[in-house]
Amino acid sequence: MVSEFDVIDGIVARLGAATDAPWVSVGPGDDAAVTSVPPGQDLVSSVDSLLADVHFPAEAPADLIGYRSMMVSLSDLAAMGAKPAWVLVSLCLPNANQAWIDAFASGVADAAHDADVAVVGGNVAAGPLNVTVSVHGFVPSGEALLRTGAQPGDAICLSGPVGGAASALNRVDLAASVRTTLEGCARAYWLPQPPFELAVSLRTHASSCIDVSDGLLQDLGHVCRASLVGANLSSESVPLAEGAELRDGLCGGDDYVLCFTTGDPQFAKAHLVFGEVIAGEGIWLDGKPADASGYQHF
Amino acid sequence: MVSEFDVIDGIVARLGAATDAPWVSVGPGDDAAVTSVPPGQDLVSSVDSLLADVHFPAEAPADLIGYRSMMVSLSDLAAMGAKPAWVLVSLCLPNANQAWIDAFASGVADAAHDADVAVVGGNVAAGPLNVTVSVHGFVPSGEALLRTGAQPGDAICLSGPVGGAASALNRVDLAASVRTTLEGCARAYWLPQPPFELAVSLRTHASSCIDVSDGLLQDLGHVCRASLVGANLSSESVPLAEGAELRDGLCGGDDYVLCFTTGDPQFAKAHLVFGEVIAGEGIWLDGKPADASGYQHF
Repeated sequence: MVSEFDVIDGIVARLGAATDAPWVSVGPGDDAAVTSVPPGQDLVSSVDSLLADVHFPAEAPADLIGYRSMMVSLSDLAAMGAKPAWVLVSLCLPNANQAWIDAFASGVADAAHDADVAVVGGNVAAGPLNVTVSVHGFVPSGEALLRTGAQPGDAICLSGPVGGAASALNRVDLAASVRTTLEGCARAYWLPQPPFELAVSLRTHASSCIDVSDGLLQDLGHVCRASLVGANLSSESVPLAEGAELRDGLCGGDDYVLCFTTGDPQFAKAHLVFGEVIAGEGIWLDGKPADASGYQHF
Repeated sequence: MVSEFDVIDGIVARLGAATDAPWVSVGPGDDAAVTSVPPGQDLVSSVDSLLADVHFPAEAPADLIGYRSMMVSLSDLAAMGAKPAWVLVSLCLPNANQAWIDAFASGVADAAHDADVAVVGGNVAAGPLNVTVSVHGFVPSGEALLRTGAQPGDAICLSGPVGGAASALNRVDLAASVRTTLEGCARAYWLPQPPFELAVSLRTHASSCIDVSDGLLQDLGHVCRASLVGANLSSESVPLAEGAELRDGLCGGDDYVLCFTTGDPQFAKAHLVFGEVIAGEGIWLDGKPADASGYQHF
């Protein structure tokens, strides 16, 4: 019988150097991890749960599940202008299949490497497949980027094209994906790359920011309500991923690009502008009220 | 249809003041929370997942599930000598039943009040019932209490009696428990009270510490292996909860009291001493090798 502790030991071994960083004094192996926050920095923290057959196909390769779970969760840090620092990973899995666990840990380690975060602890339990990642990053005190700062006249921008993941859901057998041959929209779905470097420059140039996880219109709606403004969008300016249709880009989820507003026209010019913040409320697309329904969880 | 956002709004409303604390600058409602760590303090962090019909009966009252999930997770902070500060709560639930969600949030809020922590964010998803709590606390830099410091000659102590929760699992209909009438071992199971105040004094008096979650012998075994020592225990000195048998106390889990070692005889005298750290390895009970099997997750 494989015990919980064997599973944890196997994961920690596979993570290797990914459990360490200069701000980590105690990593996996005790009751809790011990970290420090650099002077003059705030801590930015979020948690996401990804469930089998809700957020990813249960039969997909475990390394892709591990990689995607990390990046989807870390995307929330980018949306706040924070630099990712460390994560805790809680894994529920139906049975202790060693090959699956090794592959999952490899995917987590690769994402940790790509995002420059340490995996400082976690939890393993027997149950329906569920990956919950608590993510933590640093931002200079008081500089976190919120949803509340959009002003009428600001340009509305995207950090990259949208609709790729939604298009993959419709067109690709995601469960049969293999990491080494991923291309196009399947790559957008399985290996999302939140723009961590851009996020740092957004601290000083953007007035508000959100990550596009549930669909562009729905997520932009959160910004508008938080900032007490409206938005005027042009459908032909929405940057679509290869193969994606407009509906994928506006209402599909899972893209994990950033949608931000900026009052700096020079900064806006260097990015993908697709609309303008307006006084009032509501989102207008090509002059008509937009249907903002994105992903509904229940 | 109830949306994810309605569920979250309902929970946040029910949490009320429990979302705030002096170290929280952005609580629930943005992509992530923003907190600060007081100067001279380290951050101590852990995550636990509690699953329906694995860690609690699915049909139990939601307020008890919420309360217990918080305290079980916060226990890891006490085991490190940390003062609880804030948590993130990720909830997966099969359907959006408003009465259940309100009761769950009330239980979480009550635990937050009792432990003096803020609930700064979370996540809600549709899926098999699973409560994952990421817990975070403060400890003076470098003073976190680890599993590695036990020395031969140290007294081995407990912060309270053990076996109550295991006894409840055998003798009480936990799903039919009602919070207002909880007594004895059912109370120990549903309303664990990690000794947060004692944990602070352990920083200076204890040489090692762990919380008893998977069974006393198994958890003490982790300390012995981490500290490269053995333990000599006396069965008649093990403090048992009312109605608990020795096996409940030694091998039952879920107690969430602290097991600690101390080289300070005066300090030990004021606590429940049931053994001594010895050179070598292994745990001996009344002179014979002890069977350390506790809760096995797989």
